[in-house]
Amino acid sequence: MTMTIQEQLQQKINNKTKPIGALGMLEELALKIGTVQHSLSPGISNPHIVVFAGDHGIAATGKVNPYPQAVTAQMVLNFVNGGAAINVFTRQHNIGLTVVDAGVNVDFDFSLPIIHAKINHGTADYSLNNAMSIDEVNAAIEKGRNIVHALYDADCNTIGFGEMGIGNTSSAALIMHHLLHLPLKECVGKGAGANDEQLQRKLETLEEVSRLHELNRYDITPHQLLCRIGGFEIAMMAGAYHKAAELNMLIVVDGFIATAALLVAEQYNHSISNNCVFAHCSDENGHRKMLEHFAAKPVLQLGMRLGEGTGAALAIPVLQSAVAFLNEMASFESAGVSGKE
Amino acid sequence: MTMTIQEQLQQKINNKTKPIGALGMLEELALKIGTVQHSLSPGISNPHIVVFAGDHGIAATGKVNPYPQAVTAQMVLNFVNGGAAINVFTRQHNIGLTVVDAGVNVDFDFSLPIIHAKINHGTADYSLNNAMSIDEVNAAIEKGRNIVHALYDADCNTIGFGEMGIGNTSSAALIMHHLLHLPLKECVGKGAGANDEQLQRKLETLEEVSRLHELNRYDITPHQLLCRIGGFEIAMMAGAYHKAAELNMLIVVDGFIATAALLVAEQYNHSISNNCVFAHCSDENGHRKMLEHFAAKPVLQLGMRLGEGTGAALAIPVLQSAVAFLNEMASFESAGVSGKE
Repeated sequence: MTMTIQEQLQQKINNKTKPIGALGMLEELALKIGTVQHSLSPGISNPHIVVFAGDHGIAATGKVNPYPQAVTAQMVLNFVNGGAAINVFTRQHNIGLTVVDAGVNVDFDFSLPIIHAKINHGTADYSLNNAMSIDEVNAAIEKGRNIVHALYDADCNTIGFGEMGIGNTSSAALIMHHLLHLPLKECVGKGAGANDEQLQRKLETLEEVSRLHELNRYDITPHQLLCRIGGFEIAMMAGAYHKAAELNMLIVVDGFIATAALLVAEQYNHSISNNCVFAHCSDENGHRKMLEHFAAKPVLQLGMRLGEGTGAALAIPVLQSAVAFLNEMASFESAGVSGKE
Repeated sequence: MTMTIQEQLQQKINNKTKPIGALGMLEELALKIGTVQHSLSPGISNPHIVVFAGDHGIAATGKVNPYPQAVTAQMVLNFVNGGAAINVFTRQHNIGLTVVDAGVNVDFDFSLPIIHAKINHGTADYSLNNAMSIDEVNAAIEKGRNIVHALYDADCNTIGFGEMGIGNTSSAALIMHHLLHLPLKECVGKGAGANDEQLQRKLETLEEVSRLHELNRYDITPHQLLCRIGGFEIAMMAGAYHKAAELNMLIVVDGFIATAALLVAEQYNHSISNNCVFAHCSDENGHRKMLEHFAAKPVLQLGMRLGEGTGAALAIPVLQSAVAFLNEMASFESAGVSGKE
């Protein structure tokens, strides 16, 4: 009888010079990565983080966010200049970093070393109208797919997605509310740092938005959902996830917004989480419930809530540790170490 | 009014281009490391793991351990050959690794690239007699101090301690039982993988040991405790901790046995945990209670229980991330990013 790849991986893991199970989650990760790559000697090749930036029309109202909308564009420049948290962590761990203008409300100089994929100058204010058109949804998803394909062609097999967009926890909370059928109260959090009063206003605003767009209905397609309350960075990320799974890449899922985008991508590919490792549990209210939906055990629990793909960047070395022990540790036999008596 | 170093560090952290608190535990670590080093630009220099190996007389009885005693020496050779988990993780993260024969029950060839500091050929069986003499305790502690001093002289400012010693979870459990005044049942765990029956036998054996050595008494000095139920690797590690704190190094505390050794070291220096970062929460029963004693928030929670300093090795990159964001991230002012409105 032949063994499945999982059985073969488990056997290899159990024969390493350590008590059975003693590497805990690293063993689960080694099993997962080996299964995704269908290999007893999996590898993490050119890991990469793509940060999608986009503005949200509703952010201009100030009803859902304590920071001004201008911060999205300012942070894109900060990424380019290497001064943001994601720059620090990707440099530290030799992870590739690509920044994408998915729809920032500023015209960047075309010489800026980012991917210029602006769908529009921010979404429309979804407290009044649809955030974007179906054509814009399609364009964003297609662009996200193309960006991932190009990285895959450059021999990257492990990818994480981050985001920057003032107001985008609101869009993510609305997605979660609709797709997980949870009351908004369980989906809305303090984002970049709302105080209690601002949080209450955010919640009330999003409840109105939910009523306006009838998000309690079950007959909304994922495309329609993105139209109504999506963000360009979220739609592009959904396309990116979809392509990454199609190419059987290992996907490192970051925090609250990145996981909301994965919820959308899951609507297009119900087994997408087979390719996913969940980097961390964000401190943003609601992320834990999303993780539960995916039956995910996050690698890290550092109480972070920054976005930008920072959780994914910090988790990648742990994935590399999992692959390294699987490939490099001696077996009881090869090292001449005795087993249990 | 001048600000304290903590206040200055907190101000620097808060001015980074991220929402206040959004890097979670990384911010706490940056504050801690900066405070230890009394610097707004702390650094992690030549991080190093020292693995102390020692045998335990009681392990020869087989009453407390499923693996044979010979595994301790076999694993030392595995360390030398680069095939153990700690080799893999220290290689991955460019962490120095030193292996110390603190008291393995085998005479190693002196050409072996380890520190030959054998106090004796394993401890005596503490179910019958004292594990070691006071002279041996003193020799082990002194050797541990010297090893750390040599690394400090080689410009290492961050150090973690690991161990290898079949049977040493028993010694660690007895230390915890005595120093934290907890029933043995809360201190004894499955170690390298005892089944339920073996665990019960281990517990009963250690209850007898506790009675024999009167571990419920409050007038036992830490030296006497090590004499009665210590291990050479644990005593040496206690000395190593003590010296590391004296030299104001950053100490990365590994798992169950390493934390038990820290409990002993704390008897000699009650503020030793000021220099400590706790790498992870081990899956070994009892570790969580030790962490609570130190009011410690472990960096990682990966369900590991391997020893060797593996938890410390995996946590060091997270400490490096904390230092890196503090040193390298732009401030709101320097990056021209707007704050809250």
